[in-house]
Amino acid sequence: MERITKRGFASDNNSGVHPAVMKAINDVNEGHVVGYGDDPFTEEAIRILKNHFGADIDAYFVFNGTGANVLSFDAVSKAYNSIICTETSHINVDECGAPERFTGCKLLTVPTPDGKLTVEKIASHMHGFDFEHHSQPGIVSLSQATELGTVYLPEELKIICDYAHHHGLKVHMDGARICNAAASLDLSLRAVSRDAGIDVLSFGLTKNGAMQCELVIFFDQALSADFKYLRKQGMQLGSKMRFMSVQLTSLLSDDLWRQNALHSNRMAALLAEEVVKIPRVKITQKVEANGVFAVIPRSVIPLLQKEFFFYVWDESRSEVRWMTSFDTQEEDVYKFTALLAELVAR
Amino acid sequence: MERITKRGFASDNNSGVHPAVMKAINDVNEGHVVGYGDDPFTEEAIRILKNHFGADIDAYFVFNGTGANVLSFDAVSKAYNSIICTETSHINVDECGAPERFTGCKLLTVPTPDGKLTVEKIASHMHGFDFEHHSQPGIVSLSQATELGTVYLPEELKIICDYAHHHGLKVHMDGARICNAAASLDLSLRAVSRDAGIDVLSFGLTKNGAMQCELVIFFDQALSADFKYLRKQGMQLGSKMRFMSVQLTSLLSDDLWRQNALHSNRMAALLAEEVVKIPRVKITQKVEANGVFAVIPRSVIPLLQKEFFFYVWDESRSEVRWMTSFDTQEEDVYKFTALLAELVAR
Amino acid sequence: MERITKRGFASDNNSGVHPAVMKAINDVNEGHVVGYGDDPFTEEAIRILKNHFGADIDAYFVFNGTGANVLSFDAVSKAYNSIICTETSHINVDECGAPERFTGCKLLTVPTPDGKLTVEKIASHMHGFDFEHHSQPGIVSLSQATELGTVYLPEELKIICDYAHHHGLKVHMDGARICNAAASLDLSLRAVSRDAGIDVLSFGLTKNGAMQCELVIFFDQALSADFKYLRKQGMQLGSKMRFMSVQLTSLLSDDLWRQNALHSNRMAALLAEEVVKIPRVKITQKVEANGVFAVIPRSVIPLLQKEFFFYVWDESRSEVRWMTSFDTQEEDVYKFTALLAELVAR
Amino acid sequence: MERITKRGFASDNNSGVHPAVMKAINDVNEGHVVGYGDDPFTEEAIRILKNHFGADIDAYFVFNGTGANVLSFDAVSKAYNSIICTETSHINVDECGAPERFTGCKLLTVPTPDGKLTVEKIASHMHGFDFEHHSQPGIVSLSQATELGTVYLPEELKIICDYAHHHGLKVHMDGARICNAAASLDLSLRAVSRDAGIDVLSFGLTKNGAMQCELVIFFDQALSADFKYLRKQGMQLGSKMRFMSVQLTSLLSDDLWRQNALHSNRMAALLAEEVVKIPRVKITQKVEANGVFAVIPRSVIPLLQKEFFFYVWDESRSEVRWMTSFDTQEEDVYKFTALLAELVAR
Repeated sequence: MERITKRGFASDNNSGVHPAVMKAINDVNEGHVVGYGDDPFTEEAIRILKNHFGADIDAYFVFNGTGANVLSFDAVSKAYNSIICTETSHINVDECGAPERFTGCKLLTVPTPDGKLTVEKIASHMHGFDFEHHSQPGIVSLSQATELGTVYLPEELKIICDYAHHHGLKVHMDGARICNAAASLDLSLRAVSRDAGIDVLSFGLTKNGAMQCELVIFFDQALSADFKYLRKQGMQLGSKMRFMSVQLTSLLSDDLWRQNALHSNRMAALLAEEVVKIPRVKITQKVEANGVFAVIPRSVIPLLQKEFFFYVWDESRSEVRWMTSFDTQEEDVYKFTALLAELVAR
Repeated sequence: MERITKRGFASDNNSGVHPAVMKAINDVNEGHVVGYGDDPFTEEAIRILKNHFGADIDAYFVFNGTGANVLSFDAVSKAYNSIICTETSHINVDECGAPERFTGCKLLTVPTPDGKLTVEKIASHMHGFDFEHHSQPGIVSLSQATELGTVYLPEELKIICDYAHHHGLKVHMDGARICNAAASLDLSLRAVSRDAGIDVLSFGLTKNGAMQCELVIFFDQALSADFKYLRKQGMQLGSKMRFMSVQLTSLLSDDLWRQNALHSNRMAALLAEEVVKIPRVKITQKVEANGVFAVIPRSVIPLLQKEFFFYVWDESRSEVRWMTSFDTQEEDVYKFTALLAELVAR
Repeated sequence: MERITKRGFASDNNSGVHPAVMKAINDVNEGHVVGYGDDPFTEEAIRILKNHFGADIDAYFVFNGTGANVLSFDAVSKAYNSIICTETSHINVDECGAPERFTGCKLLTVPTPDGKLTVEKIASHMHGFDFEHHSQPGIVSLSQATELGTVYLPEELKIICDYAHHHGLKVHMDGARICNAAASLDLSLRAVSRDAGIDVLSFGLTKNGAMQCELVIFFDQALSADFKYLRKQGMQLGSKMRFMSVQLTSLLSDDLWRQNALHSNRMAALLAEEVVKIPRVKITQKVEANGVFAVIPRSVIPLLQKEFFFYVWDESRSEVRWMTSFDTQEEDVYKFTALLAELVAR
Repeated sequence: MERITKRGFASDNNSGVHPAVMKAINDVNEGHVVGYGDDPFTEEAIRILKNHFGADIDAYFVFNGTGANVLSFDAVSKAYNSIICTETSHINVDECGAPERFTGCKLLTVPTPDGKLTVEKIASHMHGFDFEHHSQPGIVSLSQATELGTVYLPEELKIICDYAHHHGLKVHMDGARICNAAASLDLSLRAVSRDAGIDVLSFGLTKNGAMQCELVIFFDQALSADFKYLRKQGMQLGSKMRFMSVQLTSLLSDDLWRQNALHSNRMAALLAEEVVKIPRVKITQKVEANGVFAVIPRSVIPLLQKEFFFYVWDESRSEVRWMTSFDTQEEDVYKFTALLAELVAR
């Protein structure tokens, strides 16, 4: 079979696994350990995770981001709650209704120009409390970095969390790209999540160079007392967990996670720098993490996609999304932007 | 961190990954491919799978056995259906109610001496048809090999499938250990499932030496028309799927799956041969796959577990379960049975 | 206990039962009949219903409007479907997330000035087909009359239904006030629902003078093949069903349903006529059925509510909702508007 | 339409409504009151209910027994819990899987000779605590009177409740026939439920002479803090609730409930007395409430059913179930037993 070695800009999950992560997986492939997480590798991973987020967290490996998000909601909600989020959030547009089906909750969305919630937007859904005909607002869910490549400042998060907590809501962070956010802000993982008031975090490492490594992290152990049952019933408990655990250990024991995130952020910045030079190409979002959104001539899209796969974000506006990854190379960016320039110029 | 290299008899998921599978995973770690299964490695894996089960199957990777079972049920049932299974089935005792929660179906169980369904046992739940107060029998689910280490003959399966189909039910096979069953019977994977009439199969390779590789396979494509949505909504769609696909390719492109299964079956047979020599140890189930069930002196259990971890199956009867794996060595068996003999003799 | 005999404008379910309906209930209170609908009174009711909607319908009594709506959705959807509706629809704002919880579906809402869907609005959610990450559009749900007191013309419905069907969606009508709509248009019940292309109808008689009488009516029997199980599993099957059935018979065997609807519509029209005379009161929606929406001086609201209970519709705009009922009297309207005028004048 | 005035022995829900209940319904049919239970009639009903069960209860009207049972479970469980009950319980065999679908819980059943749980039987399912692969035992559900016409003594209940509470489980009582049980024991409603340790009660009055009047009653208000949302989301909130409330008031303000129950119990006793005189008829359960179970000659069943409708309980044993009602007359019993005797004698 022909190998696909070309790197594109479709998604940060189209890359493979960072070599150090792969080495860690190989290194634990001997002997027997107890399944389902009761093994020394998982213990070690959780220990390292606590160095980042604090000793009093409670953390659980799950298979993917949808699993992390849905089970986070299930843990901190009742079925009659609503979840307030942006129209563009992954939980709203890319999970095929998984949150609704598993938790029974209603998603209440707000339009945003940049993928970021604000208190004003959240407030538009903060009514009907104590009125049994109305889904009770229960969770604010936001993404760090957002699906539009923007990043919340800690103080922005804090304002949202304070408001939510004041009204009795929990705040969930979809951290599929939290590493990119922390790298972007030159802050710790904890600073861009827990310290700003987040209650429960979908912590994603897959897009950072893992094969598959996502977790649900609770910053208040009272919220996770029975989470192990939810994870099992939610079909998200893996048997040979050591192979997940060592991925976390590999990425978080030194600062590999940050290097990977910084690199992909830099590649996005470089990409943005190059494309703004091209006429009739207009960047539509701030480039704060590893995504670049741009309006480009409609006729160019299929031609460009032939060489470098990527997704159209908004058909009606001819807006596209380009994502960079830990393994994106400068030459990938230059080749891509050269081709784009050429196609636009034709 | 100290490495755990001792091999035990607790479960066939306590082992690591077969070296050939690990090599395959390493070999595809370059370049970008489209996520979520739209990649050449997954295409290749499905092609190979069709060599085993037929060109007209429809197959989907999922993360684990619970996911495979629950989504199988979801695909071929309505929420008002019941699922007929054994009391000892994994879906009944080891999935924390995941089938009920996700599908809404009721599980109807039958006691068995050996983990195997029969038409007579199934028939005890075949009533209330067309009566709206009663859950409508919709699925027969059986495990091949069973959770008690026994194996259905193709003709036994055929009788069950004919009976079920005659009454309008679908038959699901939990094939977490289908490789052990096929090896035990010296038959093909297809012969012990599809050719006997099974409609949908949870196909498990994890216990055969994969890191994580489970699939739902439909033998009637009419049943899977919308399964891709169920998998996504069921939180079981992986992004970097190439790493799952190559595990299947590695195990199924030659007969590695059979070698692994034959080996673990042989180790169980050897274990059984050795333990029957020990006084006060009584084997309680036929050893047809890779599990050995035995009643042993109660006082011996904790002492033996200190050296070799395993699970007590039935506390009340002092019955234990020992599972062998693709990597179990003859010396593991001899050391284990020697210690057991010594402890019993004390 | 003091009797409450004052009539208000809070909701058309604050009234009691039409005397003829009550008489019918009394008249069948003798002897035994088989429970759960297998009785001659229910048979008779369905026969009469078929006179209105056609002989080939399939109809089921349920307890309330939420039950009718949710079970309608359950019958014609899969859990991965989305339901397109208005922001102001009852299913979205007044059912505490019941549709999401029971069906697993996602609600996709559109803002409207008047509570009415249009093809353009529906089209904004018609994307992502065949893309497994996206909830698949499955149902268009609209209310006739709408929650804002407006009424769809048959030709408006037809355009929506044709569009929906062309794209493979089913159309559900929340007919909690379908009698008011039919009376308003001087058309038959069938003309304002089935003949315009509706697939499944929540048919409500409670607001028309019944004690409790709601049904799910399928205009394509292929959709209801297993509905009896859904109703039972959905906790909506009543035992002493004769007392529900005779309510339908009472209202539909002659034209009592239309008289009741015409009357309440007339009372709403009268109310509108009177309030427009009052300064600083502005009617905000067309008065086409039995609801009047108006912006009134904020300070007047609590004073007026002391005498006549009603609900504030939009706090921010000081917009209120007044509903009339089959038993609203002209003098109620005059007293109410006189008080309103007086309060505004203070 | 021909009227059905014959009374049979099929079910205690085949009867109509007690005349006093019907009168109460008629008497409140004037004026407007706020919907959904915020009315003086409901307030009065709850006040009267508290006279029976204690001032610190929390009670909610629902539409039917399945609704009462399912929402009781939903209130006091998590989806990963199991519910321990008898094989013959209504929740297991007559609710089409409604408990599983709505709550996600697993039902664990025990066989019984008489429909009554015991600690020994419950204990058979009390394992796997703290083990995430296993549904966590969360509720014991029992029926008073049972589906087999037997009645728990308060001391029997107390032993079960103490055991359940000791292990952290809640105890639910399906009280569809609690009036019959209390009358049978010459005790108060409270004595046969709350005082014995029950946590949550499905309180049924429909079978006692109501048109439709079921409630969920919590004996610990901590359990019902958010029940109003569950009821609404569970599609069990009625709008014109006054018509339900006055049924309760009618039955419970004096001792009408007890008279009705005593009467139907007496009719069952009379029926039992008469049938034992008939050769080849064998009563199979103690007659402690309003049901009689008997094995009768198989050939007699269809002939007898032509005149008096009733249900076959166990086809294989030719066992039938006869239920009496508040309106069963002595002459009904004599005619019925005379016909039975005649048919047997042929």
